Amino acid sequence: MGEIVNRDVGIKYLYSLMKIDSIKIASSLENFIREYMENLERNGIILGLSGGIDSAVVAALCKEAVGSDKVLVLIMPEKDSRGEHVEDAQLLAKNLDLKAKLLDISPILKKMNVYRLFALNKLPLPDKHKEKVVKKTYDYYEKQTGESPFSASILGFKDKNFRSQLQNNNAYYRAKHRIRMVLLYLYAELENRLVVGCANKTETQIGFFVKHGCDDASDIMPLLNLYKTQVRELARYLEIPSAIQNKPPSPDIIPGIIDEEAIGISYDKLDIILLGLETGWNISELANALGVEDKKVLSVKKMIEKSEHMRKIYVP
Amino acid sequence: MGEIVNRDVGIKYLYSLMKIDSIKIASSLENFIREYMENLERNGIILGLSGGIDSAVVAALCKEAVGSDKVLVLIMPEKDSRGEHVEDAQLLAKNLDLKAKLLDISPILKKMNVYRLFALNKLPLPDKHKEKVVKKTYDYYEKQTGESPFSASILGFKDKNFRSQLQNNNAYYRAKHRIRMVLLYLYAELENRLVVGCANKTETQIGFFVKHGCDDASDIMPLLNLYKTQVRELARYLEIPSAIQNKPPSPDIIPGIIDEEAIGISYDKLDIILLGLETGWNISELANALGVEDKKVLSVKKMIEKSEHMRKIYVP
Repeated sequence: MGEIVNRDVGIKYLYSLMKIDSIKIASSLENFIREYMENLERNGIILGLSGGIDSAVVAALCKEAVGSDKVLVLIMPEKDSRGEHVEDAQLLAKNLDLKAKLLDISPILKKMNVYRLFALNKLPLPDKHKEKVVKKTYDYYEKQTGESPFSASILGFKDKNFRSQLQNNNAYYRAKHRIRMVLLYLYAELENRLVVGCANKTETQIGFFVKHGCDDASDIMPLLNLYKTQVRELARYLEIPSAIQNKPPSPDIIPGIIDEEAIGISYDKLDIILLGLETGWNISELANALGVEDKKVLSVKKMIEKSEHMRKIYVP
Repeated sequence: MGEIVNRDVGIKYLYSLMKIDSIKIASSLENFIREYMENLERNGIILGLSGGIDSAVVAALCKEAVGSDKVLVLIMPEKDSRGEHVEDAQLLAKNLDLKAKLLDISPILKKMNVYRLFALNKLPLPDKHKEKVVKKTYDYYEKQTGESPFSASILGFKDKNFRSQLQNNNAYYRAKHRIRMVLLYLYAELENRLVVGCANKTETQIGFFVKHGCDDASDIMPLLNLYKTQVRELARYLEIPSAIQNKPPSPDIIPGIIDEEAIGISYDKLDIILLGLETGWNISELANALGVEDKKVLSVKKMIEKSEHMRKIYVP
């Protein structure tokens, strides 16, 4: 009985550690952004707006940090992007009074022969149908292998079944975020701007990002010490439009894939697991306290370990 | 008098530190490459061949490490690439018996509207003439400002004269190396290959590379602890074709720009300066011992400091 109480206290303590003072954090991040724009001798800032919550929060912080006339946002949809995300991004830029450039990156990706890598692009299917097929295929993969396609994709696909199809999908969607990075730097260099990245601690720790893509390669990363749920907290404080706050997070690069389904757990639980692992909890205790199976916690631990290579470049 | 002797002993000591045991180093780098291909669960290796000495050395090491049938090289020229470099790269791939893909990246760069950024591309000039004009412009910049255009480009161009022209050039050439990175990862992911980068210690320390470009963003970096002169030593041992060993190193991204002119000092001296600074020499002593002006050493120190941001992503 005493043990259960302790666990309960423990998990409450984890939740309390997760709480942030949004006023203080926003102000310190604004200082951080302003300082680096000055230190690295830039005349302004550039970032990509995806229509999601992370880039919305960074955009709002940048505006407060240096003024809206110094911030340029790129909105870079392509053939598979959902229209609603583009609209959300455009609305946000308008609300924050930021200069925005809309760049369709499909023609660049086409020149790289990327679209033909995705088998479903060869069929004349409506988007909704594509999304369903992708979901089914990914569910089938997980049932057959016991591992989510995302987790399986963190390392190589050596000796794995389903290899070629998943490999093609990965190559296909990752190219999109890398091209976005190239364009952000192109415009940054033309106008002497600082490239501000939008990665958060959660996705960075589990490898839910594209290595050397726009959610990885940048000059500064204001949100890198904040878990996804903390970014959401900051979004509320910054009064990010509710459409952006409330929609399910999605990388918007493969039809039908949303973050929490791909990762296999909700961000609320994932963040507590990450914080628990970081502060030395053991797996069963953490699972027990959170009311999830041990294997969920174990799968998170595995993602952290497998994604180590995405956070570094190895040297002898 | 005694002082001069000491200095002489000191510089000899620096030169002796620079000597490497090529047999031992090659073998340990081959192990390093093989290990990471296995650890990161890849079925092979990919790298870009530029026709220069660094990628030639890495290619030779990779062949020894995992066998030529497991190595794919991409040769990625564009409109401004010199034909001789492409030929050297192709010859090397043939000599080493490596699979090679020749990809002209100009169409992708054209879709990004990159070529029109370079003023000289608007005039129907022969290449040789373009090279001369570029050199003259860059020399003029250095005379006017006391700083080389390369050094001036490491940080932003805030409040600087010549801003727009140099900024455009930078944006123009850097996009090339970033697109090469995107293509390396695209092919890597399609075939589950490890991306092996070719950066050396010299160019990394002074920021003579493209941030998040193909000489920066990779999975592993076998040469990162070796100075350029040590890479040359290794090239002799590995019997890299003499055409590659003997030509002046060049980034081959802006007509007329070769490394040592852009940096403003020979690699032989630069490496000794870097090693001297690392081992705590003071500036005047180092300059004196090497027979160069203090300001040469100082300019190297400045490049190291200014390029810090290129080797990291800042977080709060």
